[in-house]
Amino acid sequence: MISVGLVPLNNGSSQTKINNFDKRVMLTPTNVKYLKNNNIEVYLTRQVGLASGFNDEDYKQAGGKIVTINKLFDSDILLFLSKPDIKALAKLKPNQIIIGYLKSTNSQIGETLYKKNLIGIDIELLPRMISSAQNMDVLTSQSSLAGYCAVIKAAELSPIILPMISSAAGTIKPAKVLILGAGIAGLQAIATAKRLGAKVTAFDIRPNSKIEIESVGAKFLDLSIVSEQQGGYAKQLDKDQQNLQQKYIDKALQNYDIVITTAKVPGAKPPLLITANGVMNLPPGAVALDMAATKQGGNIDGSQDGKTLITPNGAYIVGASNLTNEVPHNASTLLGNNIQAILKHFIKDGQFKADYKNPIDKALIITNQLSKNKGE
Amino acid sequence: MISVGLVPLNNGSSQTKINNFDKRVMLTPTNVKYLKNNNIEVYLTRQVGLASGFNDEDYKQAGGKIVTINKLFDSDILLFLSKPDIKALAKLKPNQIIIGYLKSTNSQIGETLYKKNLIGIDIELLPRMISSAQNMDVLTSQSSLAGYCAVIKAAELSPIILPMISSAAGTIKPAKVLILGAGIAGLQAIATAKRLGAKVTAFDIRPNSKIEIESVGAKFLDLSIVSEQQGGYAKQLDKDQQNLQQKYIDKALQNYDIVITTAKVPGAKPPLLITANGVMNLPPGAVALDMAATKQGGNIDGSQDGKTLITPNGAYIVGASNLTNEVPHNASTLLGNNIQAILKHFIKDGQFKADYKNPIDKALIITNQLSKNKGE
Repeated sequence: MISVGLVPLNNGSSQTKINNFDKRVMLTPTNVKYLKNNNIEVYLTRQVGLASGFNDEDYKQAGGKIVTINKLFDSDILLFLSKPDIKALAKLKPNQIIIGYLKSTNSQIGETLYKKNLIGIDIELLPRMISSAQNMDVLTSQSSLAGYCAVIKAAELSPIILPMISSAAGTIKPAKVLILGAGIAGLQAIATAKRLGAKVTAFDIRPNSKIEIESVGAKFLDLSIVSEQQGGYAKQLDKDQQNLQQKYIDKALQNYDIVITTAKVPGAKPPLLITANGVMNLPPGAVALDMAATKQGGNIDGSQDGKTLITPNGAYIVGASNLTNEVPHNASTLLGNNIQAILKHFIKDGQFKADYKNPIDKALIITNQLSKNKGE
Repeated sequence: MISVGLVPLNNGSSQTKINNFDKRVMLTPTNVKYLKNNNIEVYLTRQVGLASGFNDEDYKQAGGKIVTINKLFDSDILLFLSKPDIKALAKLKPNQIIIGYLKSTNSQIGETLYKKNLIGIDIELLPRMISSAQNMDVLTSQSSLAGYCAVIKAAELSPIILPMISSAAGTIKPAKVLILGAGIAGLQAIATAKRLGAKVTAFDIRPNSKIEIESVGAKFLDLSIVSEQQGGYAKQLDKDQQNLQQKYIDKALQNYDIVITTAKVPGAKPPLLITANGVMNLPPGAVALDMAATKQGGNIDGSQDGKTLITPNGAYIVGASNLTNEVPHNASTLLGNNIQAILKHFIKDGQFKADYKNPIDKALIITNQLSKNKGE
């Protein structure tokens, strides 16, 4: 029976300090039960699902086996919520399959795994446009939740309400919300802000975005900038386009109560959508939330991931790249379903089988790509 | 020209420590302009509106006069956001009119003002059922905002999202929300939770509440308890009814992700709606928010105003009686309109005139009631 090991965030070491704690878990008890019924054994360590509200008892009842960390690392397949660290890498054995958030595009992990004769599957590299792969798409499932959370977080911080109120004591106009970047997260943010009664405007560089934005009931901020798209991800803008976009946006910002930026570019520095000038134009009490905040910068000048800053003008700048952590129970449910689908895709007749002609396999398997790139 | 003084929270003393800081202001620049046009002069001290986003420049442009605290206390009418303290009382002069949150039902303030030959108007005593008084109704305008804020705060804390999501990665069911008390705050909480896509159930002891609850799209939690109503406020339940209600509610709580209690009783201790047993039935991750939390207890056993506690079961108990502070800009706008209407009601031909036969005046003026009660 092929086995899958659910590696805990700290790789099982009691001494490892965890930075950027991720509350999620990669399989829920429901997934474990499904896999067990399909002859896939799941090994896990104690309390691996606790932070997302799944307890050991439920995993056991679903057929999961709670084991020591060493036994877990003997599994045929290992699931990693973050890039394996040196300690974890040392425990890996040849021919194991490593599936997870491997961050292969901006690290040496692909080469490292390849040299160890391991198969690495980076779940963020899924070719999202292939419809048969949609149930494996972790970026979509997690971005959708994050887009909702962005609006709730901004609404909580805002000194005004989002809906219109008409009462004997007068009328309060609906809040004005601007969403920059209308991918999965942006569209969900638009939908959530609309639901709460806000007046929503949105923008994205992709040419189809106007139709998508309007289809969810928001106004399209027409910057008359046209760009291209590739593989479902936003491409970085060229310099002229960026300057033009910034001028428009910097000026427009004075009119908004809430601004949410969502332009992540996998494996690369996110584009700066709101410059220092734009930040200064934010009115007092405005909330600008940067879902792409990283240590190397985000969509909003000066944003710091995990922090809320205040401008001299009295506006809030919120860095929040990890919003699924706000709803870990739901995030784990969807992530678990994605991982279950990925396992189902790769495991046939109780064995891991990769078909390098299949565009899904080709995109996901980083050790294969590496060997191809090197002409081996 | 009759004058109105906007008393700052600390009564102008730089030494006074403010407990329970209220960010609101009782008149906005828009109100000041309206009053000025109606020959009512408004005096205010510096930065009185800053915490709710109204600056001195706007007040000045509207015709407000920024003065010293001593000059302000010479006004014909004084507006108080909280019950005047000893220092403020010492500054009052005979025949002044004191309008505000005077908390007269559970304090000696009425008698104190009466002895000083002052007229006291407690804005929370408005007879809410009189339709011509609706634009003066501060409880309604502020409760409506608080009901919205309660849902946003609970949604922010909850480990799950409120809407249903149907996606390639599976379905997430809508969150289950229970609202106890369906007055203004409760109905707004229902509407907000519904808007966010939650499945909402609600209960209130008033016999008409079933229709009201269902009219905003929520399910009525039928406890088959019948009670009476008086003056628009919920009456306290008798012992038998309370026990019956608690049994039902205690059991029901295990099914909810978010519970919001709204049963405030003006001038009295709020009824306990969720007992210690009920609290223990809350599932892990559930958020129970008590809008009636006070130092003397609230609707939820153990709730502490301004604090978030966690139960042994992993549920959150949030005490939040002052939610308008989350949206001070809107709260001040509506409160200011209410105060403007109250001033307009009482000031005729540039003079304060009370008609003790008018049910509005009779209810609001606490010094009149006091003299009547004493047979003078």
